[in-house]
Amino acid sequence: MEFITILGLLAAPSTTSAFLPQMLKTWQSKSAKDVSYLMLITFISGLSLWLIYGIYLKSLPIILANSFTLFFNLIILWLKIRYR
Amino acid sequence: MEFITILGLLAAPSTTSAFLPQMLKTWQSKSAKDVSYLMLITFISGLSLWLIYGIYLKSLPIILANSFTLFFNLIILWLKIRYR
Repeated sequence: MEFITILGLLAAPSTTSAFLPQMLKTWQSKSAKDVSYLMLITFISGLSLWLIYGIYLKSLPIILANSFTLFFNLIILWLKIRYR
Repeated sequence: MEFITILGLLAAPSTTSAFLPQMLKTWQSKSAKDVSYLMLITFISGLSLWLIYGIYLKSLPIILANSFTLFFNLIILWLKIRYR
């Protein structure tokens, strides 16, 4: 496998899975006071655009990476609203 | 301009600029207790890999988007360490 392919295969899951510990932390601490609403809303909007972009391009890596990141961030937003 | 190009041009700045309000919020509140260290470290590692990927591919959009997101998240990490 080429170096560039390995790089891409390592990069995509890292940026996606980063929000899993954030989701679990918010779930456990029942607090997301320090997480910015504007960050979550802008990020969720951007991820939705990336998802539509991926669907248009029929690019499975773009669709998968953005679906998971979108899912984690929607849960973080829901937890933030719930525990405010 | 094609619809798909407009989508991409809207998507990239949204996911990048999302971390600007988070950075400003952390700066002002002097607290990032609810922001996960593991999220920041995993995200920063992933963004670094994306940046190297972009440099290898000579893709200016990948380089620019990931440089800014990386910069904002390094500042958030630094603020979290400083204000802990």
